[in-house]
Amino acid sequence: MAEPVLRKIRDEASKVYQSIMRRQKPTMRLPVRALNNVRYTPKVGHFELIGKKKERTLTVSTVKTFAQTLKMMSLSKELVEEDDIASKREAYYISKNWGDARFDEQPESDEVMDDVEAMFGVNREQLGFIPEEKGGEVAGQLIVIDRERESGKPLKIDCTRFGSGAYSIPISVEHLKFESSARFVLAIETAGMFQRLVKHNYWKHSRCILVSMGGVPTRACRRFVRRLADELGVPVYAFVDGDPYGFCNIYRTLKVGSGNAAHLNQFFCVPQARFLGVTPQDIIDYKLPTHPLKEVDIKRAQDALKNDPFIRHHKEWQQALEQMIAMGVRVEQQAFAMHGLNYVIEKYLPEKIRNARKFLP
Amino acid sequence: MAEPVLRKIRDEASKVYQSIMRRQKPTMRLPVRALNNVRYTPKVGHFELIGKKKERTLTVSTVKTFAQTLKMMSLSKELVEEDDIASKREAYYISKNWGDARFDEQPESDEVMDDVEAMFGVNREQLGFIPEEKGGEVAGQLIVIDRERESGKPLKIDCTRFGSGAYSIPISVEHLKFESSARFVLAIETAGMFQRLVKHNYWKHSRCILVSMGGVPTRACRRFVRRLADELGVPVYAFVDGDPYGFCNIYRTLKVGSGNAAHLNQFFCVPQARFLGVTPQDIIDYKLPTHPLKEVDIKRAQDALKNDPFIRHHKEWQQALEQMIAMGVRVEQQAFAMHGLNYVIEKYLPEKIRNARKFLP
Repeated sequence: MAEPVLRKIRDEASKVYQSIMRRQKPTMRLPVRALNNVRYTPKVGHFELIGKKKERTLTVSTVKTFAQTLKMMSLSKELVEEDDIASKREAYYISKNWGDARFDEQPESDEVMDDVEAMFGVNREQLGFIPEEKGGEVAGQLIVIDRERESGKPLKIDCTRFGSGAYSIPISVEHLKFESSARFVLAIETAGMFQRLVKHNYWKHSRCILVSMGGVPTRACRRFVRRLADELGVPVYAFVDGDPYGFCNIYRTLKVGSGNAAHLNQFFCVPQARFLGVTPQDIIDYKLPTHPLKEVDIKRAQDALKNDPFIRHHKEWQQALEQMIAMGVRVEQQAFAMHGLNYVIEKYLPEKIRNARKFLP
Repeated sequence: MAEPVLRKIRDEASKVYQSIMRRQKPTMRLPVRALNNVRYTPKVGHFELIGKKKERTLTVSTVKTFAQTLKMMSLSKELVEEDDIASKREAYYISKNWGDARFDEQPESDEVMDDVEAMFGVNREQLGFIPEEKGGEVAGQLIVIDRERESGKPLKIDCTRFGSGAYSIPISVEHLKFESSARFVLAIETAGMFQRLVKHNYWKHSRCILVSMGGVPTRACRRFVRRLADELGVPVYAFVDGDPYGFCNIYRTLKVGSGNAAHLNQFFCVPQARFLGVTPQDIIDYKLPTHPLKEVDIKRAQDALKNDPFIRHHKEWQQALEQMIAMGVRVEQQAFAMHGLNYVIEKYLPEKIRNARKFLP
């Protein structure tokens, strides 16, 4: 996995080197990372770059950024070669030893890192750079195959064997392999609901993999679920609170990615995801206790109806949001407890999964 | 473990029942949960209740709360007997079926749950009630012994076998047992630093258990670390950012608990914890890059110097905070990266651990 990245870095660096040897001004070409350089096609399922490039030529005014880009490439090469990692924050601190090429503030180094990432068309993790945040837990019918640091031997991690605990997803997941006979992945918003399903071995009877997102899923969590979906060929069902934040932030980010990192969405979205619940219709069908929508909920829903390209592409989502606004209420995953603590396990989830046509896209 | 709790619930319920049979007004006695009913002794290491009690007698005006308290006790009995769990939120929803004793808002049910918890002198988790939030990951020289849900058989979870991943601490940890030959527990603030130490098998060479707190540690994480410290008899070293938030929020909460849940601190604090770093003195000793203190940092530090009973008991902490204010800077865990990515592993941590007298209390 490391070799293609190293080759890309070496190729780019050689071009710069050869230009200089020929006494020409070296140039790097980077994709423009902005909304006016992306396209949304539902079939593709995520924002795509449409190919505009910016050139970074070595001149008096670009010399510092040019040097920083090369130093960042060099750091990445070192990380990949040594199988090491650096967080964005660490990369910033490392630059303090780059003399005049040092970064003054972290946003500058993040910017250059994003450029390098976009230039090579790979995600940051493949360059050895890791995000600051992790998140996401897993339990159920899955064996994760990692490798031992020192021997390089494969290390099998059996996610059925953690009792009331769980497997915590590492920050970088590219090197993991999977074995599983699961029928689907269930991605859950709250830690409390995850813990209930784990406690009752829900994954055993329904042959699935449980993933706790803990709110809006992190990059590592989204990438992990995406890789599961791709490699096991199983569907992903999202089970989140029935409110505009659950629909338009948590689920939308899981499925198509976020707006401000379009060059990454191809890695960090899960087009296979479908929305199991809780839907506004579930409130009626299952007689669930609710809470009134707050001003901010209504605003978020209206904003999504108007501006979110994902919502605007799916009539079912528009109808669901409009139904929610008309009902004036939101609903939580835990609301099923009113009918008994394990109603969600014994009735709601099995019924829903048998009726996949009730899912939202 | 379940039996003592069940006995307490039955005893309390029998008293109420017998009063009624004798045609007397039943009464329950609950500890007053407020700051005027706590004491801080450094030797004990956490806020303690000093014994004031309030009486809840069945009258016309208390009938609803009285009934709710009994219903909450009954729910707890059911949970413990059936080895089930309910989050605070779920308990609130369950009450929707209690007729006139139903709670209108969750703060009311939380209040009654806290009363029941204080009445029995146990933590919520032992009553079957779990927090909404989880958090905390573990890697290193530790075998966690959980049990299989269906067979009840012991289930050994080897925290050396998670590769780049980790063991995620469950919401309730009372039933776990441990085996370990670790020399200490290292509790780490950031996921990024944890991942670095995991990636390089730091736990292997230094024979320790790594715990990632991810900011201010959750109840489950604090309880887990406390139980490790008690049962393995090993010290706990905290490794957090060198700023007032790291000192007075993250570390203080880990070590002595929080101010607003004094009846729980005995379970959720880690008196064995000591502060390894990053200290203001480390900035000088290790020539670390820093950031200027913000207004809010200075305010937090001054507030702690004036009002925090823990800081006020420890001269070393007062000196450290004053040194920080005088220097006008804060420092992050990642700052060691300036001297090389693995300087923290190869130099800082080993040096510090050999010089435990440089720790803060």
